[in-house]
Amino acid sequence: MAKAIHTMIRVGDPDRSIEFYNKAFGLNVSDRFDFDDFSIIYLKNEESDFEIELTYNVGTDEYTHGTGYGHVAVAVDDLDGERERMAGLKLNPLDIKEFHRDGVLLARFFFVQDPDGYKVEVLQKIGRYA
Amino acid sequence: MAKAIHTMIRVGDPDRSIEFYNKAFGLNVSDRFDFDDFSIIYLKNEESDFEIELTYNVGTDEYTHGTGYGHVAVAVDDLDGERERMAGLKLNPLDIKEFHRDGVLLARFFFVQDPDGYKVEVLQKIGRYA
Repeated sequence: MAKAIHTMIRVGDPDRSIEFYNKAFGLNVSDRFDFDDFSIIYLKNEESDFEIELTYNVGTDEYTHGTGYGHVAVAVDDLDGERERMAGLKLNPLDIKEFHRDGVLLARFFFVQDPDGYKVEVLQKIGRYA
Repeated sequence: MAKAIHTMIRVGDPDRSIEFYNKAFGLNVSDRFDFDDFSIIYLKNEESDFEIELTYNVGTDEYTHGTGYGHVAVAVDDLDGERERMAGLKLNPLDIKEFHRDGVLLARFFFVQDPDGYKVEVLQKIGRYA
């Protein structure tokens, strides 16, 4: 069977991305492969084996975002605390939203964007996200 | 700390996507929330807690792919066998490629596209991907 292991995004400045993902989500560089014209950087933390793969193509600063791809999501214990912490770091987290169905709280979350404009959903560890 | 839990993509036909991700990667529907104008569907298998989240917006059949987002990757034990199996299912897997550095085999993989054109990288479980 197939095991989900990473998701890959192209970034314009790897140092800027590494700093963001570390500050925002505690992800660290687990591997880095530098070649003449591109670099591949894997980011991971102790919460999961699943990694974010950054691809940096030397000389390409910007990429476009289509309408299809949505986001990566992470779950945290203290959503309010994490949002406050990220706001203090000037990472510009959006407001916390709640998602209900039939009066039941399904999800509590906010979004934050990485330096290249990729959205990350931060969910409270409740219900199916616990 | 933040735990990576899912990646979200928008799809034009949820049944078509569910069938593809099941056939290709053994992912099954772990949850489904249907609303008047959209549906959210989570796909998971026993290899990982990490899920693919499909968003279906009623009436939207197509999305655009920017240049930024790359792919989700999965790892399998038998890359050749999986590629052959997917080819037999007419899923159009691309050729197997190898990625070396300094004479060392870093990765062995192929790509396959889902029905909406999202790329999925299938890696052999070797080295850092084991």
